Order: sequence, then structure tokens, then C-alpha cells
Amino acid sequence: MARVEVKQNVLRENDRIAAELRAGFRDRHTLCLNLISSPGAGKTSVLEQTLEALAGGRRRVAVLTGDIQTDRDAARLHRYGFPARQITTGGTCHLDAAMVRKALGELPPGPLDLLLVENVGNLVCPAAYDLGEDAKVVMLSVAEGDDKPLKYPSIFRRARLMLLHKIDLLPYTKFSLDAARADARRVNPDIEIIETSCVGPPGLTGWLAWLEARLHETAGR
Amino acid sequence: MARVEVKQNVLRENDRIAAELRAGFRDRHTLCLNLISSPGAGKTSVLEQTLEALAGGRRRVAVLTGDIQTDRDAARLHRYGFPARQITTGGTCHLDAAMVRKALGELPPGPLDLLLVENVGNLVCPAAYDLGEDAKVVMLSVAEGDDKPLKYPSIFRRARLMLLHKIDLLPYTKFSLDAARADARRVNPDIEIIETSCVGPPGLTGWLAWLEARLHETAGR
Repeated sequence: MARVEVKQNVLRENDRIAAELRAGFRDRHTLCLNLISSPGAGKTSVLEQTLEALAGGRRRVAVLTGDIQTDRDAARLHRYGFPARQITTGGTCHLDAAMVRKALGELPPGPLDLLLVENVGNLVCPAAYDLGEDAKVVMLSVAEGDDKPLKYPSIFRRARLMLLHKIDLLPYTKFSLDAARADARRVNPDIEIIETSCVGPPGLTGWLAWLEARLHETAGR
Repeated sequence: MARVEVKQNVLRENDRIAAELRAGFRDRHTLCLNLISSPGAGKTSVLEQTLEALAGGRRRVAVLTGDIQTDRDAARLHRYGFPARQITTGGTCHLDAAMVRKALGELPPGPLDLLLVENVGNLVCPAAYDLGEDAKVVMLSVAEGDDKPLKYPSIFRRARLMLLHKIDLLPYTKFSLDAARADARRVNPDIEIIETSCVGPPGLTGWLAWLEARLHETAGR
């Protein structure tokens, strides 16, 4: 009982900070996306290619990347000329709004069009922690199997978009795109679904178009 | 502070139950293994082929399989003639010793040579919860990337064995077996490492031989 109460208090405090963050993003016309997946689904690689596509453009972008122990991801993401901060959770299995607020304060000052937050690799715990984002984006690699939307429904229910990633591996797996799509829609009828790959067709075309549309909406709100 | 204290109390209570379970397994010469991996690394498929290999033999085996919402895994595992119980955690991101104790009580009575526990798909949280097992076995699919031992060191530090799984996908990934092995040994110099695949060479030969050796040790202790 005490454990449940503490968890509820933690989540209430998190929601309070997340609401502050969301209001700040809204005031400043910043699109904030929270990327969630299992370890190794390809979040960092997708971010790298996304930053590469955005580099040289007019968008002001920053990245916060969560990890339990290392700062490898920020090192990978720094190359594209945008600020990237590592959030090392020191054992905690998810990011929370206070960690995001602190890391935001460490970014160079100035307006942002896009804040990409890469959560800790975990398909379970990050789902419960609102970071003030406009949308959660869940990534599912086809190497993980098509049963994940029903086995881990919480994140698929809360995500606006699912990236079906590593489509290049499809010929070597038993993954059914139809089953994954149907099951994701069973837990979340409104979820949008885009197929992606970092090493072959269809590339990130669909994801980048979705991102551009969201940036356009956010600039106009 | 209250949160840390509650977590410490929870872990202390867990360790107490785990010690009871461990003493019971020892008295009854039962080998208990706790399988941990990311979602979709292939735990259930490895268990299926393991049970298939053990079916018709003289070993008395049971399986407990943890999942957040569904009971699909137990349905998959029932086919091989051994008792299999699903532990549906209802949102909790790991198994704990009390869940294992309860599920054990629901198995058919009688001696067991081998209890295989499939944890919830999560490379982070299950590492902290002792289930009374003889050994933790961590599975890493080559589709997940070779950086996982350093990014999620806790489970690699506590595991006796790492299965480098889905070796069949190696030609289609940038996974370095050498890097994964070196990094796993950096966090745990004693970790044993076996390559496995459910759909091509080297199959599960190495894993089944390791299992047989552990069963032999356990029977004689």
C-alpha cells in the first residue's frame, strides 16, 4: 500500500512538472517528441539520420538522450551541429519530467523549433512518465516480433505514432506487418504507423514527412 | 527519500522470499534459471526449442513465464508436455520472488529437475530482483546492437551466461561479436558466452550442452 502511494505521489509530481514543460513548449512554438522503444530498436540511428536530414536547414533543433550509464548516444548525436545533451539516469529505467527540465536548462539559450527526446531503452516504464511532449513516438523493430503491441500495450496506447523499423530485416524474420498493424490499432485505433529503415528502402521518407507536418502545425499554433 | 526507502524495503522483502526459494530449490535439487532480455530478443522461442529438446527425456521440467498483459507465452509453451504457468504482472515491469513463489504453488506437485523462469521483456528492471535462481541468463539478439552490455551493465554484471542470439541475422546487421564479447567481459569478467540461433547454425547446441552440465551439477549437489 505504501509502495502504491509513493508511486502515485511520484507520478503526480511528475505530471505537475510535465504540465509546466508543456506550457513552455507551447508558448515557444517548440515541437517536443518523446521516442520510446526497447533497447536496440534503432532510436539513436533514426535520430542520427533525422539530424543529418535537418542539418543545413532552417530548423532549430536540440536533442536530449537518456541512458542508464553511458554517454555514447550524445557523442553519436553531437556530430550534426545541433546541441545534444545526455541524461544519464544512473540506474533509473525511464526519463522523468524533472530530468528533462534540468537538461533543458543546460542547453544553449535561444528558441527551438524541435526538441527530440530519446528515452531510456525500455518498452514498459517510460510509458507512465509524461515529459511534457506533444507526442510519444514508439519504435518497434521487425526483429523484435509482431506480438509486441499486445504484450506491451501501455506504450502503444499512449503513442501517437508507431515506427515499424528495420524493415530491411523483414525477409529474414517471421514478422507480419499486418498482424503488428492490426494489434497496434486494437490497443489504439488512432495510432499512426510508418515503416522505416536506416539501411534500405523505404528509408526515413515517411517519418521525415510526418515530422515536417508536425513542425508546420507547431509553428502555426 | 521516501521513494528510496520504500524501494529498499521492497527489495529487502524480495531478497527474504528469494532466499527461501533458493533454499527450497537446493533441498530439492532443482536447477532454477532466470531468463532476462529486451522484448523480442527471442526468450520464448529459445524456451520452445529447449522444451522440445527435453521432451521425451527423463528430466522433470516446468516453466514460469512472465508477461505484463497477455498469456500468449504460456499457450506457446504448453505444447511440449511440461507444465507452464503464466505470471501476468498487470503492469509491473519485472517478476519478483513473491510472484514466483505463488506460481510455483500452482504447479502440479512433485519433484522438478529444472525450473525455467522467463522474465518480463526488459533489460533494466528485472536485474534488481532476485528470484532465488541458480543463475541469471541474459539474452542479447544481434539485431539489438553490440553496445548493449555497456549501456545496460547491471544485468550483464549479474548474469552467469550471455546468449548471443539470432546469430542468423548477423550478415544483415553491423553487430560486432568481438565488441559485444569484450564489453560483456569488461562489466563481468566471469560471464560465459554462447552463440545461438533458433533458425540456423549454430542452433541451440551450445546452450543445451551448458544446460545439461548445470543439471548434472545440480543433481549431484
